[in-house]
Amino acid sequence: MNGIQPIFAEGDSVRLSVDESAVVILDQSLLPNKSEYLNLRSAGEMFAAIEGLKVRGAPAIGICAAYCLYVLAKACRESDYAHFLSEVKRHSQYLNSSRPTAVNLSWALSLMEKVAMDNRDKPVAEIIELMGAQASAIHAGDIASCRSISEYGLSLVKNGDGVLTHCNAGALATSRYGTALGPLILGKERGLGFKVFACETRPLLQGARLTSYELHRAGIDVTLICDNMASAVMKKGWVQACFVGADRIAANGDTANKIGTSAVAILAKYYGIPFYVLAPTSTIDFQCAGGDDIVIELRDPAEIKEKFFAEPVALKEIPCYNPAFDVTDAALISGIVTEKGLCRPPYKESLGRLFGGA
Amino acid sequence: MNGIQPIFAEGDSVRLSVDESAVVILDQSLLPNKSEYLNLRSAGEMFAAIEGLKVRGAPAIGICAAYCLYVLAKACRESDYAHFLSEVKRHSQYLNSSRPTAVNLSWALSLMEKVAMDNRDKPVAEIIELMGAQASAIHAGDIASCRSISEYGLSLVKNGDGVLTHCNAGALATSRYGTALGPLILGKERGLGFKVFACETRPLLQGARLTSYELHRAGIDVTLICDNMASAVMKKGWVQACFVGADRIAANGDTANKIGTSAVAILAKYYGIPFYVLAPTSTIDFQCAGGDDIVIELRDPAEIKEKFFAEPVALKEIPCYNPAFDVTDAALISGIVTEKGLCRPPYKESLGRLFGGA
Repeated sequence: MNGIQPIFAEGDSVRLSVDESAVVILDQSLLPNKSEYLNLRSAGEMFAAIEGLKVRGAPAIGICAAYCLYVLAKACRESDYAHFLSEVKRHSQYLNSSRPTAVNLSWALSLMEKVAMDNRDKPVAEIIELMGAQASAIHAGDIASCRSISEYGLSLVKNGDGVLTHCNAGALATSRYGTALGPLILGKERGLGFKVFACETRPLLQGARLTSYELHRAGIDVTLICDNMASAVMKKGWVQACFVGADRIAANGDTANKIGTSAVAILAKYYGIPFYVLAPTSTIDFQCAGGDDIVIELRDPAEIKEKFFAEPVALKEIPCYNPAFDVTDAALISGIVTEKGLCRPPYKESLGRLFGGA
Repeated sequence: MNGIQPIFAEGDSVRLSVDESAVVILDQSLLPNKSEYLNLRSAGEMFAAIEGLKVRGAPAIGICAAYCLYVLAKACRESDYAHFLSEVKRHSQYLNSSRPTAVNLSWALSLMEKVAMDNRDKPVAEIIELMGAQASAIHAGDIASCRSISEYGLSLVKNGDGVLTHCNAGALATSRYGTALGPLILGKERGLGFKVFACETRPLLQGARLTSYELHRAGIDVTLICDNMASAVMKKGWVQACFVGADRIAANGDTANKIGTSAVAILAKYYGIPFYVLAPTSTIDFQCAGGDDIVIELRDPAEIKEKFFAEPVALKEIPCYNPAFDVTDAALISGIVTEKGLCRPPYKESLGRLFGGA
């Protein structure tokens, strides 16, 4: 879609099948032990893939949802506009209910719905084509965004720096370079070296399974740590910056990202280390005034006690609290790096300016 | 040894066999799925049990090491004092090398050695008896210490409070009530209710496997969380105090405890929640001026990538940093609760006073 090569020889982790009858995803839930692609054809398969984290990462979820709605629109074989639109809306609502926190999901789906609504005067076949173009544009836009975020992010670190990251905001979660990992990949291409600390990111271990895998494949010096070791690593003086992605950014800069992100930010503040959020502007939700308005997904206790383990690590009767995300206070964030540039506090003003505000 | 009943019907997690030919330990590495007791007879078995965390928790390690040295002294069948003493010292040095961070290990062993050295005028058989009495006294002392710590700790919380704890400093790690968990057990006996959040404590999951197990068995309301969820739980306002144990406390109050403890302390400070260390005075190392002097044990990367998992969660080639402990700055600690009372900052003075100083 442009000159940048994908990290994975097979292509991005989300793409359209050649005959456009399916969305092809790299099943992230099986990494790093198995590299398996899935073809999603039915709405049920698509919903399950998003809910089950086979595709994950806010930008990747957005791209996937757009392609999904296109594939479903193509398959619905309605020539009557009203019926067609109602099918599109029905599928869109269903896909949108698969996960509550990442704004990119609803953002991408509403862009796709808008194409169907804005072109009511055209034949359905043509509307479907326009929807395909929209989905491709979302994908291409993400590639360009990641590239731009990588450039801005790279300006915040220097050769030899230690960078700590939490969860996975790399190629798998996005397209090509990734967001939080983008500057490291771009730096590597330019001959710069970083020492990266990847937090394993319990309970689903995206840092261990995905980030360390992806960075190691890209030839970057990465050390895996448990989440609770971030403080020790910072205290050693090994970390010069923290880079994380985002699932939803409120208008005041409060940022929802993978559970544990707020702890990294608080530790960074304590140790005097800058903490940056790297995310496309599609992640900013101006409807959301602050972090308290962000709905946080609660997930199954079995993810903590059973998933990945050979045998359960706690008794069945013991309750768990398992939020998928937390909210990092804007006051803890040194900068928000978007494809349009770096925003500094106060974020209400700096984020607003990105959108042509004052 | 006194009126307090053990949490586990079977007795404390470390004890002497009835014929005094073995140290009996509950194999903590198999909990919560299996409750299996081991008889340690040879020095090699004893070393392996401590190094392999079959017995763990600073006070329990001290008690275990004392009983081990007694059993080995009994078994050595030397009637010549010089030979006997050299055997005792050899075994003591060997056991002492099994883990570097917990001071209770060397503390208990040197008390035992001292008995052998101070009674050179007595027959070896009598010295062995005195060593047995010393080991029992260390055990009885720990029971009394835990009880006293529990009382002082209980005065720091009130009915209904939320208490967050990291790792395991309960009955398994000590004797009877435990240190950090002691006030909760004692409170429960007195009809008080606490809402406990147990951090799972990666990589070895002592919080999931041991703390949640132990508290649930004691009928206490416990919720298991991943380490990286502590911030979210504190932000919700659910935590009124943090209680943790300690492996070594420096003269200035800097405290080595399970990896991740310093992060909990920094988060607590950020959210304005008091953070308490609960440990017997045997954990205080006056030889150690501050945290920088504490040797931190580094452990096998396989504990992060492989242990407990059905299949590896990261590639073999990826390096890990796996410190078993971290040091919490004294400035982050609201109080250190010992069996002799509660110490407040500045700790150099308050800890010193415990030992009859100024």
